[in-house]
Amino acid sequence: MTYCVATLLDEGLVFLSDSRTNAGVDNISTFRKMSVFERPGDRVLVLMTAGNLAITQAVVSLLREDLGRAGAESTLYTTGNMSDAARCVGDAIRAVHKRDAATLKELGHDFSASFLLGGQIGDEVPRLLQIYAAGNFIEATRETPYFQIGEFKYGKPIIDRIVRPDTSLRDAAKCALISMDSTIRSNLSVGLPLDLAIYRRSSLKLELRRQINADDEYFQMVRSSWSLALRHAFTDLPDLPWV
Amino acid sequence: MTYCVATLLDEGLVFLSDSRTNAGVDNISTFRKMSVFERPGDRVLVLMTAGNLAITQAVVSLLREDLGRAGAESTLYTTGNMSDAARCVGDAIRAVHKRDAATLKELGHDFSASFLLGGQIGDEVPRLLQIYAAGNFIEATRETPYFQIGEFKYGKPIIDRIVRPDTSLRDAAKCALISMDSTIRSNLSVGLPLDLAIYRRSSLKLELRRQINADDEYFQMVRSSWSLALRHAFTDLPDLPWV
Repeated sequence: MTYCVATLLDEGLVFLSDSRTNAGVDNISTFRKMSVFERPGDRVLVLMTAGNLAITQAVVSLLREDLGRAGAESTLYTTGNMSDAARCVGDAIRAVHKRDAATLKELGHDFSASFLLGGQIGDEVPRLLQIYAAGNFIEATRETPYFQIGEFKYGKPIIDRIVRPDTSLRDAAKCALISMDSTIRSNLSVGLPLDLAIYRRSSLKLELRRQINADDEYFQMVRSSWSLALRHAFTDLPDLPWV
Repeated sequence: MTYCVATLLDEGLVFLSDSRTNAGVDNISTFRKMSVFERPGDRVLVLMTAGNLAITQAVVSLLREDLGRAGAESTLYTTGNMSDAARCVGDAIRAVHKRDAATLKELGHDFSASFLLGGQIGDEVPRLLQIYAAGNFIEATRETPYFQIGEFKYGKPIIDRIVRPDTSLRDAAKCALISMDSTIRSNLSVGLPLDLAIYRRSSLKLELRRQINADDEYFQMVRSSWSLALRHAFTDLPDLPWV
């Protein structure tokens, strides 16, 4: 499995992904789940993937190959808006589906893949979309300013409690790291290193892209301080009156 | 869905279950998931259920009918230890499986059901077991002193951080309520009222059995204070150094 989370804020976008892939618990590897398509001054797109690695890699490869192909109708570097960019991703998913889905089904495997695509193209506002295995998609709004894919449940409560559209980029990134820490602690299939990307509205270039390893001082501090703070908060909460 | 959690502590056992059942989001009802089999001075057994309601109700009914049936070989009131009690539950699951599984499968439904059984019989130590749809079971240990069934992921991180075998009954119950609150906030299929039961080691009677409704003052306080404490802890955590 994997865990990716992205938040759409007034200030911009925050993306965080883990890098663990497993085909059974005895077959664990490290693969990056985040791809960046950036042309500074024109557009920034960040794509995160979860699901069957052969499928998601094939989709990302197709998208990258299209960038350089003469005569490609619409690519992540040429589309005029984020909806069309999501359609590019959807078309790539459908191309992989057409090639592989029948064989996968024959062998008893689902065609499982999900994608988060966020960014800004030219004068458009920053947008965040979740693209399904069928190639269709939904878009984040002010009411639901974040999306998660993969092992999302462990890390959902803290995001539900903290993230609002007016949350700052810093706070949303801090919250994403706590959400990731909760997930890593409770689920073996999600693990370091992490990829963090932060995009500030209208800048048309990434403000930060950082790989976070086990020896990262800030993430180590988040992990230990958050645990301690939770235990203190727990202790401070009044006891049950009934026992 | 549903959410049930039970913890096995040096001081005894804590059980908490929600009461929401849904067959689709447009068909939500309230059914209790906790059954108590108690003969003060002799034994206390608490059974919690998750999965297909028709299956789990049929299992609990069988177990209750057996209690009064002349000639029933082994019932939850007569077994000499918790392993045999878990086998009673397993036998009841298998009886329901034998009757219903083929038809369910024909209609495209899984035989989904899981059970937590905890308590103490006579001189035995308190024990906690998780029983699967196949009727087999596993037992909680000092290394893994809690079990969850149903929508367990949202509420797992806080339990992983707090609960140890030497946690007090009060603290384990408080932690279970926080875990339940996190689950209820993030998942519509888990809801009030809750059933809380607390058993103190060697007492051979329940110390507390309480239904917790939306107007319960302590649970309301837990919900609001915990949210506030988390937000404070979040604010106190140092900011990202990279932005």
